[in-house]
Amino acid sequence: MRPSRRSHDEMRAVSFERGVLRHAEGSCLVKFGETHVLVAATLEERLPPWLKGQGRGWVTAEYGMLPRATHDRTRREAAAGKQSGRTQEIQRLIGRSLRAIVDLEKLGERQITVDCDVIQADGGTRTASITGAWVALHDCLSWMKSRGMISTIPLRDHVAAVSCGIVDGEARLDLDYVEDSDAQTDVNFVMTGTGGFVEVQGTAEKIPFTEAEFSTMLGLARKGVGKLVDLQKLAVA
Amino acid sequence: MRPSRRSHDEMRAVSFERGVLRHAEGSCLVKFGETHVLVAATLEERLPPWLKGQGRGWVTAEYGMLPRATHDRTRREAAAGKQSGRTQEIQRLIGRSLRAIVDLEKLGERQITVDCDVIQADGGTRTASITGAWVALHDCLSWMKSRGMISTIPLRDHVAAVSCGIVDGEARLDLDYVEDSDAQTDVNFVMTGTGGFVEVQGTAEKIPFTEAEFSTMLGLARKGVGKLVDLQKLAVA
Amino acid sequence: MRPSRRSHDEMRAVSFERGVLRHAEGSCLVKFGETHVLVAATLEERLPPWLKGQGRGWVTAEYGMLPRATHDRTRREAAAGKQSGRTQEIQRLIGRSLRAIVDLEKLGERQITVDCDVIQADGGTRTASITGAWVALHDCLSWMKSRGMISTIPLRDHVAAVSCGIVDGEARLDLDYVEDSDAQTDVNFVMTGTGGFVEVQGTAEKIPFTEAEFSTMLGLARKGVGKLVDLQKLAVA
Amino acid sequence: MRPSRRSHDEMRAVSFERGVLRHAEGSCLVKFGETHVLVAATLEERLPPWLKGQGRGWVTAEYGMLPRATHDRTRREAAAGKQSGRTQEIQRLIGRSLRAIVDLEKLGERQITVDCDVIQADGGTRTASITGAWVALHDCLSWMKSRGMISTIPLRDHVAAVSCGIVDGEARLDLDYVEDSDAQTDVNFVMTGTGGFVEVQGTAEKIPFTEAEFSTMLGLARKGVGKLVDLQKLAVA
Amino acid sequence: MRPSRRSHDEMRAVSFERGVLRHAEGSCLVKFGETHVLVAATLEERLPPWLKGQGRGWVTAEYGMLPRATHDRTRREAAAGKQSGRTQEIQRLIGRSLRAIVDLEKLGERQITVDCDVIQADGGTRTASITGAWVALHDCLSWMKSRGMISTIPLRDHVAAVSCGIVDGEARLDLDYVEDSDAQTDVNFVMTGTGGFVEVQGTAEKIPFTEAEFSTMLGLARKGVGKLVDLQKLAVA
Amino acid sequence: MRPSRRSHDEMRAVSFERGVLRHAEGSCLVKFGETHVLVAATLEERLPPWLKGQGRGWVTAEYGMLPRATHDRTRREAAAGKQSGRTQEIQRLIGRSLRAIVDLEKLGERQITVDCDVIQADGGTRTASITGAWVALHDCLSWMKSRGMISTIPLRDHVAAVSCGIVDGEARLDLDYVEDSDAQTDVNFVMTGTGGFVEVQGTAEKIPFTEAEFSTMLGLARKGVGKLVDLQKLAVA
Repeated sequence: MRPSRRSHDEMRAVSFERGVLRHAEGSCLVKFGETHVLVAATLEERLPPWLKGQGRGWVTAEYGMLPRATHDRTRREAAAGKQSGRTQEIQRLIGRSLRAIVDLEKLGERQITVDCDVIQADGGTRTASITGAWVALHDCLSWMKSRGMISTIPLRDHVAAVSCGIVDGEARLDLDYVEDSDAQTDVNFVMTGTGGFVEVQGTAEKIPFTEAEFSTMLGLARKGVGKLVDLQKLAVA
Repeated sequence: MRPSRRSHDEMRAVSFERGVLRHAEGSCLVKFGETHVLVAATLEERLPPWLKGQGRGWVTAEYGMLPRATHDRTRREAAAGKQSGRTQEIQRLIGRSLRAIVDLEKLGERQITVDCDVIQADGGTRTASITGAWVALHDCLSWMKSRGMISTIPLRDHVAAVSCGIVDGEARLDLDYVEDSDAQTDVNFVMTGTGGFVEVQGTAEKIPFTEAEFSTMLGLARKGVGKLVDLQKLAVA
Repeated sequence: MRPSRRSHDEMRAVSFERGVLRHAEGSCLVKFGETHVLVAATLEERLPPWLKGQGRGWVTAEYGMLPRATHDRTRREAAAGKQSGRTQEIQRLIGRSLRAIVDLEKLGERQITVDCDVIQADGGTRTASITGAWVALHDCLSWMKSRGMISTIPLRDHVAAVSCGIVDGEARLDLDYVEDSDAQTDVNFVMTGTGGFVEVQGTAEKIPFTEAEFSTMLGLARKGVGKLVDLQKLAVA
Repeated sequence: MRPSRRSHDEMRAVSFERGVLRHAEGSCLVKFGETHVLVAATLEERLPPWLKGQGRGWVTAEYGMLPRATHDRTRREAAAGKQSGRTQEIQRLIGRSLRAIVDLEKLGERQITVDCDVIQADGGTRTASITGAWVALHDCLSWMKSRGMISTIPLRDHVAAVSCGIVDGEARLDLDYVEDSDAQTDVNFVMTGTGGFVEVQGTAEKIPFTEAEFSTMLGLARKGVGKLVDLQKLAVA
Repeated sequence: MRPSRRSHDEMRAVSFERGVLRHAEGSCLVKFGETHVLVAATLEERLPPWLKGQGRGWVTAEYGMLPRATHDRTRREAAAGKQSGRTQEIQRLIGRSLRAIVDLEKLGERQITVDCDVIQADGGTRTASITGAWVALHDCLSWMKSRGMISTIPLRDHVAAVSCGIVDGEARLDLDYVEDSDAQTDVNFVMTGTGGFVEVQGTAEKIPFTEAEFSTMLGLARKGVGKLVDLQKLAVA
Repeated sequence: MRPSRRSHDEMRAVSFERGVLRHAEGSCLVKFGETHVLVAATLEERLPPWLKGQGRGWVTAEYGMLPRATHDRTRREAAAGKQSGRTQEIQRLIGRSLRAIVDLEKLGERQITVDCDVIQADGGTRTASITGAWVALHDCLSWMKSRGMISTIPLRDHVAAVSCGIVDGEARLDLDYVEDSDAQTDVNFVMTGTGGFVEVQGTAEKIPFTEAEFSTMLGLARKGVGKLVDLQKLAVA
């Protein structure tokens, strides 16, 4: 029995609340159970210097966690004077995941920055961030379309993410914090709406995993991402 | 006529939502109109080194702003590698304001850190932070009392804050962003429930202010803080 | 009786020594008793990027304290790798105070940076800095006028500052370090020569202060600033 | 035809030169073709504070790249004042990979730091680092055993890594820089000598990859790691 | 003819003003012509961690320059967030020079930090700093002796410093800023009262120097340091 | 007898291995006995901003040490977040030494950065760096000449460096780590092929040195540098 009484292939309750930030071009409060992430998409008419004049835009992401999103208070990165390796790793992952499904040429010479700030953490903050980021990005692009800045929304596909793990010898979908701490293996899958893989990041925390275990987790992920993409579609419908 | 159609001595709609963060000992989402601040109070059984062994505790505060809390995106301080002068000034102010009404001896050798993170900004983020911080701090202390860590709640009084300003020659209560940008003078008042002054910070942005103007603003502040304290009482009742 | 044997409304000996730095366009060694601040005003024919092309200039300030200005040695901020929150708060205050009385349009597209470095500290370093900064700024502007860069000195008024406090229940003018450490309340007043208020920053260190106490301190400040402005006039005559 | 004229399942020439650093307890210059990494394993009789007194040791890694290891000069991270997100991501990966095969209890309360410094880069610096790190770590542990500090070498298995990618629609083993820049997908596999997976990190640079493509790459990786482990065995024999 | 009309072997007017800082155990305002350095010696009853328990003390130095000590304003190092290479080089030199003549065993387990802050710069700030530092250090040690903390002043000798250079083909003593900018070679000599060399740092700015030129400069330095030591003796007499 | 059994005027085995880095325009692995430094010269078609438009180029140097180049592991400067004072001092020295023999006008508006990274340290890392840097710089300039970017190699002379010291009362050439730790005096000489002095940096670690001792060391240095220049000539022949 999982601590949350879910079956091994059951996701937590997932929800998207759109338009939660008055100033942002697109925004979304995404919840994967008790993991809550506030996502804001910002459009800016400027590009990083190395990208200027190439006729295409850029999508990037930043990630943060409020100090008391976690069980014990985490030191504020602004006070520490730098972003941790973990933070940088996650925000690079979110950025790559989004760029995989955006048509940067059609975006034009503009930058969209997607800020993912974890309000409350209970495992899976990076997968919730990516999944919610797609919604905020979509709404930012709709905002641009409604103003005539672009003629179509330059998204080639959906993108969503979920973690799977081996806990007590069983493959499980969408780990929460308690399971994650206990997992022998943890794999994050980032997939498109049409079933392609964008990122796969698996780590054996304690015991190396086998190809068979990997395949089982991949099957769970396919199911989970399928559900997430359905929910994204409902959310932006 | 004020942009928000309020009368000169009318506050914005103020609300406190308690217990919004699952992990924090005390938490509160405070809203002053469109200014929204998430406050978390964290109890830790440790003290800054310079305070150890003196038989009393410490209350401190940190302040942050999500990058897209503002109209245009603000650079993330964690990415910039340091907290701005403004951030440090505000978090020092919040900490002093809270310490003015806490009995640190009765708290015992513990530290409470109050994190104020601005989710959405529309003027008055520091006054909303202080006012909401009192509620989160109160709830953290109640949590301690309910666990027998302290026998009474070591709060000597309420503390709340409001800004007043001179806009278009008129003294006004609780400026929002549009008025604040336009104000000739801006004064932040931090006051106790019994009407004492804890902090007064007045700045003439354009034209020096007179003693009479100051007196008028002080009267407005007294009215505003009175209302805020009433709302705090209702919130924690 | 005050530790310095002054009466409650008596300032410390105040002096300005002009032209103490060979290279600076304006400079001044200001003393408020044992508090000594070296002020240098630097003219530069460049502006911060956000101000370019608007037809007006800028006045800014930086503040520092030599490591052994204080009773115990303070860590050098350059070695620590950052300016403290207190330093940033003070230099922002000095800059705002000066800008309140300068006609930035008449200054032209130039920047004046006023460096206030505390050689020796005995309370009131920020008030001495502001008061001395007016003299150094005046001399920098005179230097410009004598070279035909401006036709009149673009100062609308004097600006000077003094602290008042409640010590042992008594309102006192111009606190030194011993009184400041002991004060129940400490208020810094920045005022113009014509009696307007530019900044008021009051903090209840121990017990909240009342409106009556504030009024008494304000009266003392008016007297103190009046004297400081007279001394500024004598100094630059 | 691959630019290097290798067949799709052929690794570059791989070599290990042991004992290249006079001072290190274990060291190794590992080459994957034109990618050269100098690895040094350092034993220290101290632990990170959070690990003290738990009866087990720690293995950690740091990664760096000489400024001119790359085609164009890269800015020195020590001069920039921080390690890039990429650097931190890689050194965290190397550390996790090594810890997966070390028996930390048998190591005792000691820390081994494995420094991987890229002398020359031509793709695959992280996989070469992990593969060479196993050799340097092994030699450091042998050094300890020969001095009677441990009775057996506390390695549970080999660990080695290789990258695979889809280039021009073909799955290929051990990409060099030219192929890596061109790859539609790039997956790094970290595996043990007995065929378990320690880390899998796949990224679709341009087009999402399919499960079939992933399987093909996994087969190539199994072959490549098999060869690397054989070479490690020869090297330390 | 030198710009200052001095003869080639003539020093600038040198003076020491002792006891200029109220709080410091020893202090000195040293002037080499228009180069003015404020030196403060601070006694602390603590040691750097790596020196504890060895029965001897430590003398170290820090160096800084006020932003407007120079002809053009120099950026404040505290604002820049780090000390320049030049600053670190100079403060390391001052520290070594002082330690060369202090008996650290007799000092006991204490640290003296000598802060050299340049108020006004006109060439030779490092040589003035070393020469003045000896006086401040002497006075700090006298302060300790007068309080019975040490029975004798643990100074083995005087130490003083002067620069020499080749300007327009001529060897000259004690270069000021104009000459220094123009010099083909610049050598700083740090010597003891008994004529030993503590540090020699020579740099050919434009043309390599010869052994003969070096010898001539060494003779000038011997003369200059002799005079500085005489003045130190007079100052502390 | 010296620990290395060398006679007092005998250098360690010195060698230069050219072209060791595939990507660099010039490179060299220089060995002074067990001190090994990898030097890379990088040509870039850009200049520091303060040098633009003056018709001449720039040569600069950076220095680093791999963490386990030393007997005990040294903290990685990139992880510490800054370069030490020692590192900055050395890289400034290398840069000045090279600029002394390059004709910057003939180089044209380009910058050459010479990276000196210590792979293994056994004393004399700065002298080996300078000596090897000349070779890498020469090869970078040859590379430019062979591509027609310059018509002649703009080197006015050779430059090489060696340390001398007084150990056990005896003047010795080219100290290794053991001798260096023990030396009473340590002087680094940087000289040209024609016998001019570019830099002389002498430090009395324990006992001040005399003019006679200095002369003896200078004679040794002349001999050592003569030999180094002969080896440079052989290397690039």
